[in-house]
Amino acid sequence: MDITLTQSEQVLSQAKAKANEIGVPVNIAIMDTTGYLKTLQRMDDAFIGTIDVAIQKAKTAMLFRMNTEQVGEFLKPEAAAYGLENTNGGLVGFAGGMPIKQGGKIIGYIGVSGGAIPQDFSIATAGSIIE
Amino acid sequence: MDITLTQSEQVLSQAKAKANEIGVPVNIAIMDTTGYLKTLQRMDDAFIGTIDVAIQKAKTAMLFRMNTEQVGEFLKPEAAAYGLENTNGGLVGFAGGMPIKQGGKIIGYIGVSGGAIPQDFSIATAGSIIE
Amino acid sequence: MDITLTQSEQVLSQAKAKANEIGVPVNIAIMDTTGYLKTLQRMDDAFIGTIDVAIQKAKTAMLFRMNTEQVGEFLKPEAAAYGLENTNGGLVGFAGGMPIKQGGKIIGYIGVSGGAIPQDFSIATAGSIIE
Amino acid sequence: MDITLTQSEQVLSQAKAKANEIGVPVNIAIMDTTGYLKTLQRMDDAFIGTIDVAIQKAKTAMLFRMNTEQVGEFLKPEAAAYGLENTNGGLVGFAGGMPIKQGGKIIGYIGVSGGAIPQDFSIATAGSIIE
Repeated sequence: MDITLTQSEQVLSQAKAKANEIGVPVNIAIMDTTGYLKTLQRMDDAFIGTIDVAIQKAKTAMLFRMNTEQVGEFLKPEAAAYGLENTNGGLVGFAGGMPIKQGGKIIGYIGVSGGAIPQDFSIATAGSIIE
Repeated sequence: MDITLTQSEQVLSQAKAKANEIGVPVNIAIMDTTGYLKTLQRMDDAFIGTIDVAIQKAKTAMLFRMNTEQVGEFLKPEAAAYGLENTNGGLVGFAGGMPIKQGGKIIGYIGVSGGAIPQDFSIATAGSIIE
Repeated sequence: MDITLTQSEQVLSQAKAKANEIGVPVNIAIMDTTGYLKTLQRMDDAFIGTIDVAIQKAKTAMLFRMNTEQVGEFLKPEAAAYGLENTNGGLVGFAGGMPIKQGGKIIGYIGVSGGAIPQDFSIATAGSIIE
Repeated sequence: MDITLTQSEQVLSQAKAKANEIGVPVNIAIMDTTGYLKTLQRMDDAFIGTIDVAIQKAKTAMLFRMNTEQVGEFLKPEAAAYGLENTNGGLVGFAGGMPIKQGGKIIGYIGVSGGAIPQDFSIATAGSIIE
């Protein structure tokens, strides 16, 4: 069963609480398991360029059902997967995109962008598991 | 001054209340005055095809600073502006997109899609003026 | 020989003088004979949505070496050229795009958008012939 | 307040003076603070391929509110932000794009392309501060 609006609001609430705690303005994109946006929110003062990065992170995580930094392993030059990053309209292979789980089951994907990579990862992680 | 997250949450709250009152699942897209998404929400069971319609309605209203049905007047065959609908990545000229005003000033744009056209218009209108 | 910067400045100057005389803020796009932008100018308060319309008007005129309203004849429903408006990334078939001539020879194309159609036509015409 | 036509003409004048001094034909793109073109000019003999580079430089600087070579730091392989360059329709991370300031305030963005990278940087810099 796919992410509901109520569930996405819970994800958003948890991620925003972490962003506010860290004090960094980010974009938070929440997708269902087939890559369609369920919720997007851009905090005040976030860079305009990070809207698309947040969406692409959620999309990349969805496309391969894994964290974006794990997809990034395949995008490293030494992985020699030439051009892989250009598929699917562009993959984003650094931390901040990951599955959202409830009871161990993937119900959607979250992508966060706007802070330093570890901050984005931390905020996405805060929204990645709901009860 | 452009729409803040707090203002967009007020817009979303008003529009969703109307959607729930009518009982129709829609997508609600809120943009700043230059066309960048501030908030997007897709209610459960809304058609996937209506996500992009909601976004393009908000975008069309922004591009010409007027309601989408007013832009639609220019898209009618008898207006003879052949091809106008294909500019700017595609215009949407029916009701459901309009400016968001506070104190008479445009602070952003809302686009709603998922219901019948009068329903979309009614829901967008509910979110189009905030205090 | 293709339009030079000096020639495009002359075209721009003539078109802007007419726009100021009429008192309508427009976008003026000037292309060479192969469709690459030479000059673009957006006057203050012109609708954002009209930037792309001006560019597409110049492009459409270039693609068929005629005025955009002449291309529009082929885009009318009764011309039955189904889908023609979707070719070349989108054609624009109403007045405001036309060749720029010097000594009877086409040296480039101009596209104007922002006013009513007859205003756009008038402004483009003002820039369409240089000495 | 966003860049006016008068201000953009001042920026263009300063940048072109530097380009003429150096003796290199370039494209100069000037955008407002949200990424919409205000002015574009292509000098005679500039490579066709550099029109889009100039526009994308201005856009990249806008998206992250910094010089393009600073964005380039995030695009280096060792920064490990795999795929970031493919977001937002393509980022350009080398010198020649930067904010335009007046009284210390960002009023728009300039992108220059056509010369060697240090030349583009020098020309953009000449247009980056106005009185």
